[in-house]
Amino acid sequence: MAHLAGRFIVFDGPDGSGKSTQFRRFAAACRGAGLTVCEVREPGGTPIGEAIRDILLDPRHVEMSVRCEMMLYMASRAQLIDQRVRPALDRHELVLADRFISSTLAYQGTAGGLDASDIIAVGRVAIGDRWPDLTVVFDVDERTAASRLNPLLDRMEQKGAAFHRRVRDGYLAQARDMPDRYAVVDATAGEEDVYAAMCASVRSSFATASG
Amino acid sequence: MAHLAGRFIVFDGPDGSGKSTQFRRFAAACRGAGLTVCEVREPGGTPIGEAIRDILLDPRHVEMSVRCEMMLYMASRAQLIDQRVRPALDRHELVLADRFISSTLAYQGTAGGLDASDIIAVGRVAIGDRWPDLTVVFDVDERTAASRLNPLLDRMEQKGAAFHRRVRDGYLAQARDMPDRYAVVDATAGEEDVYAAMCASVRSSFATASG
Repeated sequence: MAHLAGRFIVFDGPDGSGKSTQFRRFAAACRGAGLTVCEVREPGGTPIGEAIRDILLDPRHVEMSVRCEMMLYMASRAQLIDQRVRPALDRHELVLADRFISSTLAYQGTAGGLDASDIIAVGRVAIGDRWPDLTVVFDVDERTAASRLNPLLDRMEQKGAAFHRRVRDGYLAQARDMPDRYAVVDATAGEEDVYAAMCASVRSSFATASG
Repeated sequence: MAHLAGRFIVFDGPDGSGKSTQFRRFAAACRGAGLTVCEVREPGGTPIGEAIRDILLDPRHVEMSVRCEMMLYMASRAQLIDQRVRPALDRHELVLADRFISSTLAYQGTAGGLDASDIIAVGRVAIGDRWPDLTVVFDVDERTAASRLNPLLDRMEQKGAAFHRRVRDGYLAQARDMPDRYAVVDATAGEEDVYAAMCASVRSSFATASG
């Protein structure tokens, strides 16, 4: 796994896709293989980002416009990139992110109605053009996803089935549009099978990459 | 003043320029003349914006990157536009804003080091391309400004004299670059003189505008 040092990999997918479980397991395996791993999660990952996360996930903020929501995710992301991701990449660590711009493109873009080109324009500035080397999408249908979710839902998770179907479509559309930067893993299977498929995906992505 | 109905005017300038005093006085005069006035201030102006304002002005957040700061101002602005400014303009009210994108261009741009083109690209998305009809800049040298400031400074006001000089330069550069959308008022004079000069500026701006 030494070829992963200095790489920036995102784990993403709908709520209930199991991505966070896979994320923790993969991070532990990479550490076990001797890599220095910088793990970050969105929104949050820094004290300022956690304060932004509190605003975003507060169920009382029903009047929040989708553009404000998008900008808040980008603000948290800008701080995360400047304070943690870029310094870790400069130290040649492996950076693993639980959610990134791919989430904004799916949730506030495809599902929320904002133009993908607007999100990418804002995202380019927010991250100083440091895009992930690979985004792994954990793909799951909305019924399977719903069956895995906690009944105590936050503001994003409370949205309906049609919304979550659009979120899934959003992830798949990104993977179709940017096949060299995305890998899709079927996340409806059991944890072991998903993990094996994900590892194979990461391996083949970097085997075919120029680096 | 009936020709100001449905217009969007921003009052801006360095801390200590006296813009907020002029803003309140002008708003009261417009109301006295029978206009319906929507007053907003930045950052804030909505409950979500006030929560964002708390993060921005918290002196403990010394590690905040200038890109995160810019995105937070834009998030507050997006909510303000969607929740208050656009509905008021649709009702043909006069919208008066204490600070707007001009502040971001001066503080995070000219003084903070971000590219103006990046700020404008993000701003265009944040405000859904609804730019102010006029931005009045209250111009003051940094010594006069400092003498007017409260000794209990917030995180933005704590920055040094060189920073505030660049802020001033930033406002003046905007006015030079976009003369049809900006008016500069000398704010070193006494309150009465500044008020008279500002009213004359607003009058002449809209007299020469096509609308």
